[in-house]
Amino acid sequence: MKRLFEVDPWLVATHHLDKADRRLQESITAVGNGYMGLRGNFEEGYSGDSLQGTYLGGVWFPDKTRVGWWKIGYPEYFGKVINAPSFLGIGITVNGEQVDLATSRYRDFYLALDLHQGLLTRRFVYLGDGVEVRFEFARFLSQTIKEAAFVSVKATVLRGHAAVTFDASLDGQVTNEDSNYDERFWVPLHEDAAAKSIQLQTKPNPYGVPQFTVLLKQQLRVNDQPVNGQVATTSGQLHEQVTVQLAEGQSYQLEKDAIVVTSRDVAPAAQATTAAQLMKRVTAQSFAAHLAAHTDRWEQRWAKSDVVIEGDPAAQQGIRFNIAQLFMTYYGEDKRLNIGPKGFTGEKYGGATYWDTEAFIVPMYLAVTPPEVTRALLQYRHDQLPGAFHNARQQGLAGALYPMVTFNGIECHNEWEITFEEIHRNAAIAFAIYQYTAYTGDESYVKHDGLEVLVGTARFWADRVHFSQRTQQYMIHGVTGPNEYENNVNNNWYTNTMAVWELQYTLERLAKGDADVVTALAVTDQEKQHWQAIIDHMYYPTDDQLGIFVQQDNFLDKDLRPASTIPVDQRPINQHWSWDRILRSPFIKQADVLQGLYFLNDRFTKAEKERNFDFYEPLTVHESSLSPSIHAVLAAELGKIDKATELYARTARLDLDDYNHDTQDGLHITSMSGSWLAIVQGFAGMRYDHDQLRFHPQLPKNWRRYQFKLNYRGRLLAVDVGQTVTVSLLAGPALDMAIDGKPVHLEVEDGHA
Amino acid sequence: MKRLFEVDPWLVATHHLDKADRRLQESITAVGNGYMGLRGNFEEGYSGDSLQGTYLGGVWFPDKTRVGWWKIGYPEYFGKVINAPSFLGIGITVNGEQVDLATSRYRDFYLALDLHQGLLTRRFVYLGDGVEVRFEFARFLSQTIKEAAFVSVKATVLRGHAAVTFDASLDGQVTNEDSNYDERFWVPLHEDAAAKSIQLQTKPNPYGVPQFTVLLKQQLRVNDQPVNGQVATTSGQLHEQVTVQLAEGQSYQLEKDAIVVTSRDVAPAAQATTAAQLMKRVTAQSFAAHLAAHTDRWEQRWAKSDVVIEGDPAAQQGIRFNIAQLFMTYYGEDKRLNIGPKGFTGEKYGGATYWDTEAFIVPMYLAVTPPEVTRALLQYRHDQLPGAFHNARQQGLAGALYPMVTFNGIECHNEWEITFEEIHRNAAIAFAIYQYTAYTGDESYVKHDGLEVLVGTARFWADRVHFSQRTQQYMIHGVTGPNEYENNVNNNWYTNTMAVWELQYTLERLAKGDADVVTALAVTDQEKQHWQAIIDHMYYPTDDQLGIFVQQDNFLDKDLRPASTIPVDQRPINQHWSWDRILRSPFIKQADVLQGLYFLNDRFTKAEKERNFDFYEPLTVHESSLSPSIHAVLAAELGKIDKATELYARTARLDLDDYNHDTQDGLHITSMSGSWLAIVQGFAGMRYDHDQLRFHPQLPKNWRRYQFKLNYRGRLLAVDVGQTVTVSLLAGPALDMAIDGKPVHLEVEDGHA
Repeated sequence: MKRLFEVDPWLVATHHLDKADRRLQESITAVGNGYMGLRGNFEEGYSGDSLQGTYLGGVWFPDKTRVGWWKIGYPEYFGKVINAPSFLGIGITVNGEQVDLATSRYRDFYLALDLHQGLLTRRFVYLGDGVEVRFEFARFLSQTIKEAAFVSVKATVLRGHAAVTFDASLDGQVTNEDSNYDERFWVPLHEDAAAKSIQLQTKPNPYGVPQFTVLLKQQLRVNDQPVNGQVATTSGQLHEQVTVQLAEGQSYQLEKDAIVVTSRDVAPAAQATTAAQLMKRVTAQSFAAHLAAHTDRWEQRWAKSDVVIEGDPAAQQGIRFNIAQLFMTYYGEDKRLNIGPKGFTGEKYGGATYWDTEAFIVPMYLAVTPPEVTRALLQYRHDQLPGAFHNARQQGLAGALYPMVTFNGIECHNEWEITFEEIHRNAAIAFAIYQYTAYTGDESYVKHDGLEVLVGTARFWADRVHFSQRTQQYMIHGVTGPNEYENNVNNNWYTNTMAVWELQYTLERLAKGDADVVTALAVTDQEKQHWQAIIDHMYYPTDDQLGIFVQQDNFLDKDLRPASTIPVDQRPINQHWSWDRILRSPFIKQADVLQGLYFLNDRFTKAEKERNFDFYEPLTVHESSLSPSIHAVLAAELGKIDKATELYARTARLDLDDYNHDTQDGLHITSMSGSWLAIVQGFAGMRYDHDQLRFHPQLPKNWRRYQFKLNYRGRLLAVDVGQTVTVSLLAGPALDMAIDGKPVHLEVEDGHA
Repeated sequence: MKRLFEVDPWLVATHHLDKADRRLQESITAVGNGYMGLRGNFEEGYSGDSLQGTYLGGVWFPDKTRVGWWKIGYPEYFGKVINAPSFLGIGITVNGEQVDLATSRYRDFYLALDLHQGLLTRRFVYLGDGVEVRFEFARFLSQTIKEAAFVSVKATVLRGHAAVTFDASLDGQVTNEDSNYDERFWVPLHEDAAAKSIQLQTKPNPYGVPQFTVLLKQQLRVNDQPVNGQVATTSGQLHEQVTVQLAEGQSYQLEKDAIVVTSRDVAPAAQATTAAQLMKRVTAQSFAAHLAAHTDRWEQRWAKSDVVIEGDPAAQQGIRFNIAQLFMTYYGEDKRLNIGPKGFTGEKYGGATYWDTEAFIVPMYLAVTPPEVTRALLQYRHDQLPGAFHNARQQGLAGALYPMVTFNGIECHNEWEITFEEIHRNAAIAFAIYQYTAYTGDESYVKHDGLEVLVGTARFWADRVHFSQRTQQYMIHGVTGPNEYENNVNNNWYTNTMAVWELQYTLERLAKGDADVVTALAVTDQEKQHWQAIIDHMYYPTDDQLGIFVQQDNFLDKDLRPASTIPVDQRPINQHWSWDRILRSPFIKQADVLQGLYFLNDRFTKAEKERNFDFYEPLTVHESSLSPSIHAVLAAELGKIDKATELYARTARLDLDDYNHDTQDGLHITSMSGSWLAIVQGFAGMRYDHDQLRFHPQLPKNWRRYQFKLNYRGRLLAVDVGQTVTVSLLAGPALDMAIDGKPVHLEVEDGHA
């Protein structure tokens, strides 16, 4: 655990520049607007250890898969998140000396991310030779003009005289740090000194993946009026310098506006014109006016999603940080995008889309964003159905297999034990359709596009199972479950269970589907009978003596002992143990059987949940950031409120406290919903199956109160759990719901329960 | 199946240049002398499709392992067989036209490998503009001066006048074809035009693996007298040109002698001097004299190892080709070398040493070469014990884990499912010690160096097993058995069986070990008790109903159906099916349970062998070249003589008939012993356990007779199986042995049984 920032309800701020942990600081102070984002790199540059990172949604590179021995079915390429050309730079010299916090003397450092609207500010006093200059920075990526980035820097001379030169740059000479091959992914096309723009293209690839072209354009302003510096260009770079002479007491504030357009939206030939038009919109209003409009959008979001925690300031900060970072990553504006595990905060993990979205993000987004945001996430998968069919074909299988990792629907992961075997992802994508439908009551997706997804993935399952003559049951061999600390296991209970769930749900929805889709899908009676046979005769590993569902066929033969027996200096085991030792160990990375009990929560008795939780949780090392939240929800349901609270802490401040020692690489964006799930589904016991919203609220011991908002079927609700529980209907038609099993009727006028 | 060469008892010859299958021709006409070897590339060059390959024993490069996600325990590098600088080239022009069989007109092509002594000859008539020239080539790599290669070319003008220029070259500008990265592994150091030599070094590596320096030197001779051509050098290359004017009817024979020394034997600074001394020895005698001395060595080998088959010329050619190629690869001269899967015939497969040596080569070499040859193979493993300890430490395990693939003892394979899991290799290395001891009666190795190997590997097993509380038995999870078409299985019967066998054998031999070694090994009573507990309480998957040993815990749950159900156009499955489909299928790549029945042949009843053979063989696709021979031996033992004959055919002519469609990459050197095993252990039923040599001979239906020689404990025996069976003692003291279970006393004077 490492806490670099001060605890505050709405700020993530520090008065210390942590040079040894600069990368961690950069991750935590990343900002984004769903279209693009960047790490908390310094405008003026920084020669110390740092990870430079600017990322554009949906802009990537397909890199050759490298394996020891190629085998049929391996993906040809993996999708690489590439560091994009940077618009951030404003180099600074004072009386000819470079300002560089790695080497310069300074005092009064302060860095703050305002969670209200993703505004990053910074200030420090530079101590030069006979001169002291205060610098104040601010940056945000606009929510109203997605292509626009606003950066401002103000210099105030506190002592002496300062000749200050600002060097505002656009920089396409960027590389990926994680690339094995020291490759450059960007080829400079054009620099335009007059238009102050650079244009670059991703290098060619042999896989038929389109190359991306981007254009970056900048404009400097002082007092809201454009100023023009000295422009110089080199290949892939543009520099614009402004020098001012400032006497003691004088200030100078420079604003840098940047526009970034990509060939995802604008053809390369039109990019210069489009960027100029956008820049015109930018310069038509002041920095302050743009910030106000941007903040207004954020206020609308917070009004529907804020969570208040009283009595635990660290928990309060954690949940708001997570919500803010999630919304900076994705708010559904672009249906071609999804939520990558590091969002716009790092380059680690090839590919942008994991099953994390469906399993962990959807249940939160359903409640805190308008339904169309979640629907966009569902639509994304429908739009990638051709890729899913391709992936199944690669394995010689029927139907659709969604990828473990992708940008475009084609599988991009390059380990067979994941690509071929971690197929449970297919069911999670179907389950998100169920969740969306159950929460919103909106059947339009599941009747049409969603049905295509269901049938495609169901057909995959029907081909992927096999019939074991000996046991006269269907089985699923050779899978990797959610617990990636086992590979290539047989009859993973979770996978078998979810596969059957999906076949059942698909049969059920097929009967109610839109006629045109049902006709086009042409599911034969024979197919339906086969699906039903699988449903009726699936094998599930269980142990009657222990009364548990067994993670996979041979799990109970392992050397079973609790994770508490692992010496502390060997944790996390994935940084200390060989892969062989991990695979053979009984230790579980993240919820596996318990993930099934979480998803299909209404199908199991409390006693079943309790026996399985008590068996598996002690074996679980929670080394996936996705693990603690699911356990917290179940622990709360089982009345293990202390355990739930402990697990909540790990998910709420995973990045702020760097629990897994890896936040320096980027934030764990997709697990950020976990803290919300732990509060709302865990402590508040929210459930919404069977067309009824229900709560079973509990209060963690050290909390005085917590409050959250939900949208539910056209309503806005506020839930307040303190010594008493209050659910209020803030907007929308009357609602019948339940608290602690008792029916409650809510109306707006007097909606208190 | 593709048969390019004519059937002949001692020749592998063809009258056709197969341009479409030139690589296959090159593989089959490779020659070597245990120190170096080269594919059947043409001296004059060839611009058509071809795989240029010259290889030096023990000269390799450690290349960076590339994987999708690095995990603890992965090998840092893999060992690459590198194409070595070539000494072969003699470019030819006739009246200024390049002779190149890919483009030139020619007639009367003939290419022949003489199996008596590995002599490759070739001739053709070049058809130029108004000129016809016959060229005759010969080459061999000396068995008496291992660093020496002899190449000769004779030009005879049949029509017209020919100005013939010979360009004899040394070429260090070579690359590997299988390298993903277009890297050059050789850095030129020096070219010496006066000494006619070039010197090169392998490029640096970051793994502490020594770089190799080689020096190549050439000398031209005509009528056994040195001649000096025009020498020119470029970086890493040397060319020496001789031009002769030949009238119709005139001949000119040019001999090129080459010396290759490497830093494995001679320090770089001394290489020029050493090469000069060696060249002096070469030029002191004629080509014919060197060839005679070389052939004499080969005659001595054949006298102890020839196999005669009457009635099946193709089978006859197959077994002699295999023996010759094996002896060209390894005859025990250099204890630092081993037998790589492609020998000196191709660059495929990283690394030079697999468990193939112990499992498949040792049982043959024991009988056909002097005992010290096999002992050298054993010694190799002892000398690499430090690497084996390293490999176990990498996994966090005690003891010694021999590598799956290596040059130096360090694991070089880069797939976790092989590196970490195919650990049965450890037992094969111990089993070779047992075989050597049982066959030769020589206990000196097992009492001393061999005991260190046994205890090191036994300690690995003792740490690698785990105790399953539920079943109160020891288990081995997470392994890959010999059947590599399954990965990461639990309780592979073969692995569990061989691990226990090894622990038993180690305890037994430890009690009889040399005192100094036993003391140094310091095996505690507690350790011995632990080993005994594992022996007593190991779990073995079995099926009482089927009466078989079960390949691994979940094997019988598979969709079991015979390999005959696979459509012919989907064979081999590894070229048609996804890896996922193969892994989940019931199809077996090579003997797995049956490998155990083969090794521990005396421990199982005939009924047990029969039930297991009848269950597993139909599931086996024999897609490893190591598979058919083991099945042939068992089939013969079980009286399934037709099945044995069918399987023999696949192993005897695997390369000559290109059964697996991959001989173009190089010969399957380590599986070449399979044909010998099928004859001697299969048809002749040779066994040697319990200190008694025994035969149970059978005659395949289409054979009239077969004969083979054996050395056994200081004796030379001849076995003749026709309508009657005769075993003769050709040399050595009297021997009591058994034929068909009946005791036979053999003496040299009248040794007929």
